[in-house]
Amino acid sequence: MSTDVSLADVERAAAVLLGVAHRTPVVTSSTLDQRVGASVFLKCENLQRMGAFKFRGAYNAVSAVALDGRSPGVVAFSSGNHAQAVALAARLHGLPSIIVMPSQAPTAKLAATRGYGAEVVTYDLSTGDREAIAADVVARTGYALVAPFDDPAVIAGQGTAALEMLDEVASLDVVVAPVGGGGLLAGTAVAVRGRLGDGLGRARLVGVEPEAGDDGRQSLVAGRRIVLDSVPETIADGQQTKALGHLPFAIMRRAGAEIVTVDDDQIVRAMVFLFERTKLVVEPSGATGVAALLAGRIPDVAGRRVGVIVSGGNVDADRFRALIGRAGGA
Amino acid sequence: MSTDVSLADVERAAAVLLGVAHRTPVVTSSTLDQRVGASVFLKCENLQRMGAFKFRGAYNAVSAVALDGRSPGVVAFSSGNHAQAVALAARLHGLPSIIVMPSQAPTAKLAATRGYGAEVVTYDLSTGDREAIAADVVARTGYALVAPFDDPAVIAGQGTAALEMLDEVASLDVVVAPVGGGGLLAGTAVAVRGRLGDGLGRARLVGVEPEAGDDGRQSLVAGRRIVLDSVPETIADGQQTKALGHLPFAIMRRAGAEIVTVDDDQIVRAMVFLFERTKLVVEPSGATGVAALLAGRIPDVAGRRVGVIVSGGNVDADRFRALIGRAGGA
Repeated sequence: MSTDVSLADVERAAAVLLGVAHRTPVVTSSTLDQRVGASVFLKCENLQRMGAFKFRGAYNAVSAVALDGRSPGVVAFSSGNHAQAVALAARLHGLPSIIVMPSQAPTAKLAATRGYGAEVVTYDLSTGDREAIAADVVARTGYALVAPFDDPAVIAGQGTAALEMLDEVASLDVVVAPVGGGGLLAGTAVAVRGRLGDGLGRARLVGVEPEAGDDGRQSLVAGRRIVLDSVPETIADGQQTKALGHLPFAIMRRAGAEIVTVDDDQIVRAMVFLFERTKLVVEPSGATGVAALLAGRIPDVAGRRVGVIVSGGNVDADRFRALIGRAGGA
Repeated sequence: MSTDVSLADVERAAAVLLGVAHRTPVVTSSTLDQRVGASVFLKCENLQRMGAFKFRGAYNAVSAVALDGRSPGVVAFSSGNHAQAVALAARLHGLPSIIVMPSQAPTAKLAATRGYGAEVVTYDLSTGDREAIAADVVARTGYALVAPFDDPAVIAGQGTAALEMLDEVASLDVVVAPVGGGGLLAGTAVAVRGRLGDGLGRARLVGVEPEAGDDGRQSLVAGRRIVLDSVPETIADGQQTKALGHLPFAIMRRAGAEIVTVDDDQIVRAMVFLFERTKLVVEPSGATGVAALLAGRIPDVAGRRVGVIVSGGNVDADRFRALIGRAGGA
């Protein structure tokens, strides 16, 4: 695998994922269209296996490890959807997996990851160094590390969601995706630039970050990777990253992506809107694209055809209840 | 239109609805399959236009009124999904509509019905007689009454949901649908008996009612329509009916349908399960089929292929929050 990602890589990932990942539906809402003043298409990755697009990239990367055959297993560090995605992908390939997770992670997430057959190694958030622990596991076991976003195979896998959307919805003017480490937006950029080209009808690529963690926006403006001093405080737990990955950043720059931000209240309002109007359960990070549209944070969308990747739905009912209570029921 | 309903009527309704109603997705969940011990297929009518299967029957009935041409408009009485379904169907046909609703109905529902272009006539729940008011409107205006379930065109329309499911999922052993007035289960029965026949592989038809309003179950056992003394108290607001419709009852009997019941706590647990595991927002009535499966209320499903109509998703976020709070977060 090269250190860059091409449309051919995304198309190969789509072939690898065929019959394994769900081909998720694209949903529309006339109320959303009216509110935004545009034609909006929601690519529902909350309905993906294990509830998020992360399955695509993890499966594609684990598949490459299995094909290569030199590593007897895979290892990953994550407290979120990537942990479960790698665990599930490993099980589907008959490979053992070791996932490094904070001992403070919700019991349900630890249990779910073990439920997918992974061995979970915990560390203390305040004193442990998860990268060092993972490196130690790699040295000890020879397992291959599956990075959450700074990996060509992962990025190629994430790009398959946009590829499916482009196959289903013609003539998109704008494509919107959430940004944490940037794997999803980078994969989306490769698919969109590869399919829609750079000529007439060049689509805009818009990433959405939580306002509290706008390192990606800052990075694109500055022309270099900005690293935040601390983990951003936001309800969008899928986007609590301090910096873009190196490869995602390079791909986004080359593709001319923009990044806009939303605050937590705008995210909750979007979650409630999606709940009530589209009957979809969407986690905070997954709702940032719709939040940006509803809050008018994406300029020049009037009358346009806008594709939005709704990236995940892993929010449990109690947390949803607490979040909408916090916003006064929005 | 005859006073009975045949498979040909349901197929005609499907043609009328083509390109107008959504062809809703069928969703599966490996966790649900494990919990139930069966292969379960969820027909997602919560993703239907205006959020419930009711659009199908209302549109088919309003279409017949428009085609007939003798009535200058339509009238309906309902405090629930049927009100909005008739209002929307009328607007799509360019016909005026008058909807008789209790003045105590939630402001949001009154506003939504008016939002679909209907004239709303309110009455007081404790003193008014909605059927008399509707009859008066019919006499005064010549508008045609669209009944919520005791109408062949409505039943034929509701049957199209099952028809789509049968087209998509082979060899169903059991088909499950919620029962209020019985329009959905009757339409489903016509589709299933028409398509799967009475020979080898005869599918079981199972209706699900809230325990507090089991008039349908009682009626099938007694062999005659049982009418409850009062409106059943249950969170399943789409099933607060005192009796089955005459025509639905006759169709269910002939089709050999069974009816099982679930209590409110089982319904809430199913809503939470659907939220967390399938990322779908489902209203209480819409969740009764899954509730019955999870609670083991439907006998002999082990190893079977079970199709369930998830009938609607019209529950707002605040009510969802209150319902799951009531159950201690399930």
